[in-house]
Amino acid sequence: MADHHFSFEEVQGFARVDHDRAARQGMPEFVYAEGKAPEHVAAIMSSMVERQGAALASRARPDHAEAVLAALPEARYDATARLITVGQLPRLATGLAKVVAAGTSDLPVAEEACGVLDFLGDRVERLYDVGVAGVHRLLAHVDALAEADVLVVVAGMEGALPTVVGGLVAPPIIAVPTSVGYGASFQGLAALLGMLNSCAPGVTVVNIDNGLGAAAAAHRVLNALRRPPEGR
Amino acid sequence: MADHHFSFEEVQGFARVDHDRAARQGMPEFVYAEGKAPEHVAAIMSSMVERQGAALASRARPDHAEAVLAALPEARYDATARLITVGQLPRLATGLAKVVAAGTSDLPVAEEACGVLDFLGDRVERLYDVGVAGVHRLLAHVDALAEADVLVVVAGMEGALPTVVGGLVAPPIIAVPTSVGYGASFQGLAALLGMLNSCAPGVTVVNIDNGLGAAAAAHRVLNALRRPPEGR
Amino acid sequence: MADHHFSFEEVQGFARVDHDRAARQGMPEFVYAEGKAPEHVAAIMSSMVERQGAALASRARPDHAEAVLAALPEARYDATARLITVGQLPRLATGLAKVVAAGTSDLPVAEEACGVLDFLGDRVERLYDVGVAGVHRLLAHVDALAEADVLVVVAGMEGALPTVVGGLVAPPIIAVPTSVGYGASFQGLAALLGMLNSCAPGVTVVNIDNGLGAAAAAHRVLNALRRPPEGR
Amino acid sequence: MADHHFSFEEVQGFARVDHDRAARQGMPEFVYAEGKAPEHVAAIMSSMVERQGAALASRARPDHAEAVLAALPEARYDATARLITVGQLPRLATGLAKVVAAGTSDLPVAEEACGVLDFLGDRVERLYDVGVAGVHRLLAHVDALAEADVLVVVAGMEGALPTVVGGLVAPPIIAVPTSVGYGASFQGLAALLGMLNSCAPGVTVVNIDNGLGAAAAAHRVLNALRRPPEGR
Amino acid sequence: MADHHFSFEEVQGFARVDHDRAARQGMPEFVYAEGKAPEHVAAIMSSMVERQGAALASRARPDHAEAVLAALPEARYDATARLITVGQLPRLATGLAKVVAAGTSDLPVAEEACGVLDFLGDRVERLYDVGVAGVHRLLAHVDALAEADVLVVVAGMEGALPTVVGGLVAPPIIAVPTSVGYGASFQGLAALLGMLNSCAPGVTVVNIDNGLGAAAAAHRVLNALRRPPEGR
Amino acid sequence: MADHHFSFEEVQGFARVDHDRAARQGMPEFVYAEGKAPEHVAAIMSSMVERQGAALASRARPDHAEAVLAALPEARYDATARLITVGQLPRLATGLAKVVAAGTSDLPVAEEACGVLDFLGDRVERLYDVGVAGVHRLLAHVDALAEADVLVVVAGMEGALPTVVGGLVAPPIIAVPTSVGYGASFQGLAALLGMLNSCAPGVTVVNIDNGLGAAAAAHRVLNALRRPPEGR
Amino acid sequence: MADHHFSFEEVQGFARVDHDRAARQGMPEFVYAEGKAPEHVAAIMSSMVERQGAALASRARPDHAEAVLAALPEARYDATARLITVGQLPRLATGLAKVVAAGTSDLPVAEEACGVLDFLGDRVERLYDVGVAGVHRLLAHVDALAEADVLVVVAGMEGALPTVVGGLVAPPIIAVPTSVGYGASFQGLAALLGMLNSCAPGVTVVNIDNGLGAAAAAHRVLNALRRPPEGR
Amino acid sequence: MADHHFSFEEVQGFARVDHDRAARQGMPEFVYAEGKAPEHVAAIMSSMVERQGAALASRARPDHAEAVLAALPEARYDATARLITVGQLPRLATGLAKVVAAGTSDLPVAEEACGVLDFLGDRVERLYDVGVAGVHRLLAHVDALAEADVLVVVAGMEGALPTVVGGLVAPPIIAVPTSVGYGASFQGLAALLGMLNSCAPGVTVVNIDNGLGAAAAAHRVLNALRRPPEGR
Repeated sequence: MADHHFSFEEVQGFARVDHDRAARQGMPEFVYAEGKAPEHVAAIMSSMVERQGAALASRARPDHAEAVLAALPEARYDATARLITVGQLPRLATGLAKVVAAGTSDLPVAEEACGVLDFLGDRVERLYDVGVAGVHRLLAHVDALAEADVLVVVAGMEGALPTVVGGLVAPPIIAVPTSVGYGASFQGLAALLGMLNSCAPGVTVVNIDNGLGAAAAAHRVLNALRRPPEGR
Repeated sequence: MADHHFSFEEVQGFARVDHDRAARQGMPEFVYAEGKAPEHVAAIMSSMVERQGAALASRARPDHAEAVLAALPEARYDATARLITVGQLPRLATGLAKVVAAGTSDLPVAEEACGVLDFLGDRVERLYDVGVAGVHRLLAHVDALAEADVLVVVAGMEGALPTVVGGLVAPPIIAVPTSVGYGASFQGLAALLGMLNSCAPGVTVVNIDNGLGAAAAAHRVLNALRRPPEGR
Repeated sequence: MADHHFSFEEVQGFARVDHDRAARQGMPEFVYAEGKAPEHVAAIMSSMVERQGAALASRARPDHAEAVLAALPEARYDATARLITVGQLPRLATGLAKVVAAGTSDLPVAEEACGVLDFLGDRVERLYDVGVAGVHRLLAHVDALAEADVLVVVAGMEGALPTVVGGLVAPPIIAVPTSVGYGASFQGLAALLGMLNSCAPGVTVVNIDNGLGAAAAAHRVLNALRRPPEGR
Repeated sequence: MADHHFSFEEVQGFARVDHDRAARQGMPEFVYAEGKAPEHVAAIMSSMVERQGAALASRARPDHAEAVLAALPEARYDATARLITVGQLPRLATGLAKVVAAGTSDLPVAEEACGVLDFLGDRVERLYDVGVAGVHRLLAHVDALAEADVLVVVAGMEGALPTVVGGLVAPPIIAVPTSVGYGASFQGLAALLGMLNSCAPGVTVVNIDNGLGAAAAAHRVLNALRRPPEGR
Repeated sequence: MADHHFSFEEVQGFARVDHDRAARQGMPEFVYAEGKAPEHVAAIMSSMVERQGAALASRARPDHAEAVLAALPEARYDATARLITVGQLPRLATGLAKVVAAGTSDLPVAEEACGVLDFLGDRVERLYDVGVAGVHRLLAHVDALAEADVLVVVAGMEGALPTVVGGLVAPPIIAVPTSVGYGASFQGLAALLGMLNSCAPGVTVVNIDNGLGAAAAAHRVLNALRRPPEGR
Repeated sequence: MADHHFSFEEVQGFARVDHDRAARQGMPEFVYAEGKAPEHVAAIMSSMVERQGAALASRARPDHAEAVLAALPEARYDATARLITVGQLPRLATGLAKVVAAGTSDLPVAEEACGVLDFLGDRVERLYDVGVAGVHRLLAHVDALAEADVLVVVAGMEGALPTVVGGLVAPPIIAVPTSVGYGASFQGLAALLGMLNSCAPGVTVVNIDNGLGAAAAAHRVLNALRRPPEGR
Repeated sequence: MADHHFSFEEVQGFARVDHDRAARQGMPEFVYAEGKAPEHVAAIMSSMVERQGAALASRARPDHAEAVLAALPEARYDATARLITVGQLPRLATGLAKVVAAGTSDLPVAEEACGVLDFLGDRVERLYDVGVAGVHRLLAHVDALAEADVLVVVAGMEGALPTVVGGLVAPPIIAVPTSVGYGASFQGLAALLGMLNSCAPGVTVVNIDNGLGAAAAAHRVLNALRRPPEGR
Repeated sequence: MADHHFSFEEVQGFARVDHDRAARQGMPEFVYAEGKAPEHVAAIMSSMVERQGAALASRARPDHAEAVLAALPEARYDATARLITVGQLPRLATGLAKVVAAGTSDLPVAEEACGVLDFLGDRVERLYDVGVAGVHRLLAHVDALAEADVLVVVAGMEGALPTVVGGLVAPPIIAVPTSVGYGASFQGLAALLGMLNSCAPGVTVVNIDNGLGAAAAAHRVLNALRRPPEGR
């Protein structure tokens, strides 16, 4: 197992940064800022930048961003996507991801997915506000959807968009339920269940509001395309 | 209140049949057979037929049908819809209901709705197997859907069909979630929540598998059309 | 399908406004303000007003109202109903909706329903504080309830009001559970389940606190009454 | 504490029968047959009859009844109420319980309550099939309801009956949700939540289908009436 | 039905105060302040005081109290119990309620129950901090518990206290689950389910944190004791 | 849209078979046998075989298999996987899927995934009984896991296997929760939630026990690999 | 890691038996029979007996037992505990476990715990039918409870027994909720939540009906006592 | 029972402090500050310090700490662990607890466990940030884990860490789910269910975020090790 890149570094006694994760999983460790002290986020990102040249933190509040910017002035903070990024991984030529969103209220989650894909060096395009209550808006883009190598489809409320997309085109579909909605949406549970029960074959699902997770899943698919043919 | 038709009849000490319900609510009392002893169902239906000339029992098992047929030989049993009917209310000229179903597994519920509407004297048409995983099957029928006075839309799994229909046409929509699906459908909960969270405006919902309730709701709409203009 | 009014307009890259929705669904697109940036709400409403002459946003906070008023000084904000409206659709002669509420705590949801119906040009009347714990208050209004073309019935806690109404009169009933209550009401779940399991036939239900959805459903019913007889 | 009747008897190594429970709680221990082997039920009831002269088992299947009848030929089995009784406690002069049920499907639970009250020596009267979808059936009995010392109110589906009763009359109300209903009744959860959220003040609730528990609660109230005035 | 006290008064168009409720249900209507505007609470209480001489509002915040005090200077506000009271009903000689609480965190709910009973004229005594993790604290008070006419038992976390009390003494028991606890208490759900599944016979339950409801239920029991013997 | 393969065929009035689905979605329509009458399954599969040369039904009981075999003698029935297949799609040279299962109780779901992939012409390999309670069994196969183009990971109980796999290797991971477990597994809910909350980045999830859905998702990934480079 | 006993054996291609688990975890692998084919259970147990001299299968039905007895005639089947055992591990001198059960309906789960502890060589004693509705039955055994090294406490319904035991004595407590109860017990959920929210400090919980898991946890505690002092 | 240390002290009428709990349960009563008034916490802790020389309050906010420090200047407040401690119990020579945490977001709960164990006089060591997404970080510490007498394992999200630990080493394992995660973690429910369904034998679980409960459970195990051999 020694050649599978299993090392790590202790950071100030409270964290063990897994620097070889990129070699193993095809992407580096991300920092989940929510619930972490701002100074912890800054320390972990500093360690990552030093070793890997780039780092990304998700679910970051402005006070997280402030602490990171103090330590790493080159950091950027996208308040909509709640992402802090320092640097970026090399651009990758092969593969195209498209991020589709049902409504403008789903933007923060969709932008989180786009931001993470961009950080990972993937090519990404957006198609927003094509919810199923006006299905013609979606039908006008069937060709564009079909040409993607992987689709991230973001929707709240009843979460029906991935099903309709999945019935129209062939690429892999990663559905992201959002907590948009009220009452019996139960903070995204309705959309989550809707996507898990999709009658379109082959729709896969990630956690509610988990734009980062969807991006990571899309990146795994794009990486599979990039392997040398003999690797298959 | 005396002129609002509030009378009832005691049947063998265990039931109080509400014979004036038709005058009050626009439809007679139905017998919910599930959980009732077959002989109770037969006794209640006999009392209704005697007073009202017709009766309907839902969720009827074959042993219910057998007991009713012994007492009322003119009864008919539809095993798919699980309905026992004796007689039928007068045909009504105005109004057209359409029952739309997503898949063939939803048939029993859709047929329950059709059977009840038929019993109530309403005109009803069917459009089945038009689930959203192949949305073109539905789009081919937009004109037909638009001409209905009320739509009953039946779907299991993620329950997205009423939303797509509601985005395409204007008639009142009564959505019926079914318990078709597995795992995280949780016996129809996923479809129920999906329909309640519909992003199409004005979709209303009845209980899981409740074809009868949907038919009753559709009948209320059709009755509203039949009122003399001065009644409005 | 070209004649079914399927066009849309892109607004500043983040939204696709569905201007033909009124022709298709019998009512225009509404703006769901919750979770949207105030400037997005203002931009979308401006686009709608320009093309359609009127617009409505629901679940609007005061900061939404402020942004809209800056762009559209003729806008009005109803803080109880949380509605921003600009203009109003033409008054419609036929049809009467009544909005019934169980308690004074249910007012915001009931007023949302009234405000939307009013915006859509429908005639609407109110009957408030007639909860079932003092059922005589309701019985005193049976005649008034029976003369409506459609009833919107709003209740929290155990949500029993639509059932009692449904047992008394014939018009279509759209039940709206509210999140009023505490503990085991689970933010309206108890009322929602109560209404879905109504023993009165033909009660339909919309999402918790969804006054707008109930109004849209009532409008669909009223529109069905307005179709020329040959349309049926 | 010695004078508070805390003794017990070991029965064949697997049970500890609490023979002083009647002195302590005002009623003897009942046997909950479900999940117990028929021969265990028979052994425990035999021990009780020997020491206390009477015994009752609830949730009893026919095979339980068979085993008990073999050991105690004087036992009686009520298949509807699923009760096995041997003997009966002395008739008590004071106090009247009424058991009210919404529909005929709720009979097994209502009859369990009646059977247990009868076994305990209480006077009990029945009022069945007075569900709120035809509220006039209930209003016709307001005087009868008001004269009870305690009311057990049994209902399934949305469980609204106890609320309406509680708004009409003053006696203590013990609400029993039943698992009657389908789909989103979730085996009685809807009725349970409805009753817990009753807008009528002072409605108390027992477990789903728990006729025995309701009878025991009613018996506690009736026993309170029977205490000598100086005891208060 | 005319002699059953079914009148009401409209208050400023938004409320229908049910002034005869005391005659019907044995206690007046209470005002549930949560979710009501402070000026609405003040108006409703003023109407009640004028007609009935006393009024009580529950779940009242300081701003509710302020508005009421401005209109009714004789009002009192108990911030722990969140009750506003104006006046008090006549003291009643018969009957004793005891309110038992498991821990000091349950005090607000227990005090709400005590405050409502006191307002209704009932005699009430407290026994606090006798949770089952130190069951000897409870056993030391068995005699005191047994002499009550009705017991209100308040507990959070696992909610086991009513079961242990119910196994020790005979009076009617009204269990109140509280939202005290964390994690898997799910805001009182654990205590609620625990009480509903009590293995002690005859424990009844009200909604989570519903001290007022428990007091109303206890008052119904005490009223039953006060009826003239011929009334039984 | 005409060139996106949107045709369908009505089968005996109850079904609309979507024969162009393979061209659109990269795989043909599957028949979900559960809840369908055996003769319906046979009729639908016959229509598919006639037009497409092959067909697959999932969740098939023996009586479904019997009806299909009567109509299509070349059909095969795999009782463990509950699959009926007739024919098979052409073998595809590119791409390798691996199906990993935690325990032997998860076999039926894992075999459903393998059977569907095999039917679709994909190359599939199995790695079973490598649950995380003996994590060394999994670590011994890291190289084998890393060489797959897509991984389907099946687990019940706590569903931790996909997370551990996702932390070890880079390919796309489709997690399938199974209903294996008891008590608080709640028929697979625990495993489902565990997988959705995976701390390994990029794990995607399908419905409980949905081996077919996982296979369809894996097939979408493999199809992405097979597109000509210029298609990207 | 090589010296931590990480080996395994493939059994007929479908299982990987983890023969070193005893060295690693202090107990051998158990076979979970539910959901496994009888012949698979027999094959796995045979492999275990050959290598380890003993084996245990839980949740075994009679047909499992039959298949195992055919292969391993020395096997024994306990139908109450649903355990198949072949042989037994060596008796261990140190340590005493006590299994406490609330009611006779909890016997199958309690006996599963006893059977597993016995198989593992631990000394175990039983104390049954000491539920909290008659708390004096428990108080009579405080000394006996206090002398155990570990307590397994089994209860259904509200699951209060572990809390009361935990308030009385000091040993480690492993609480086992059972699915005994009805209605709002939700198959043991009420007892599970009750135990997780115990107000007695240090109560730990295992899955619903998981007697085996409780026994394994108790065995871990007893093994800790058996380590040589220098090991600490 | 007199020799089992059942005494208590009333504190200012609102609390009954159970001073003999240490003798009975092996640890003193803790103060659960959440939901208690700061002055109540200070009064209870003062009473404890006076009688027992030490006291600990959990879930303490800064205003609790301030009130306690005013009364007991020697008190210390750990804001991360939310613990107020005054004094400390005597150091105990025997036994070693290790607290293992999956991620840095789980620190507050892990530190609560450490703080309580430290207060109780137990020896405790930490191992943090060893989540299963990089399982090699955990495998590097197998020897260290195996030498503990008891393990407290803290994890959020999918909560898989205790299962992997339980498959590697033999000591008793107390799993603590945390509310870390988002969306379908449902505030720790996913981790809780994952741990309850652990496929590693003998994992026990405490409430979500309940570091104190885990410490108390660990202390019970360590106390069992400290009993004189003849006590076993």
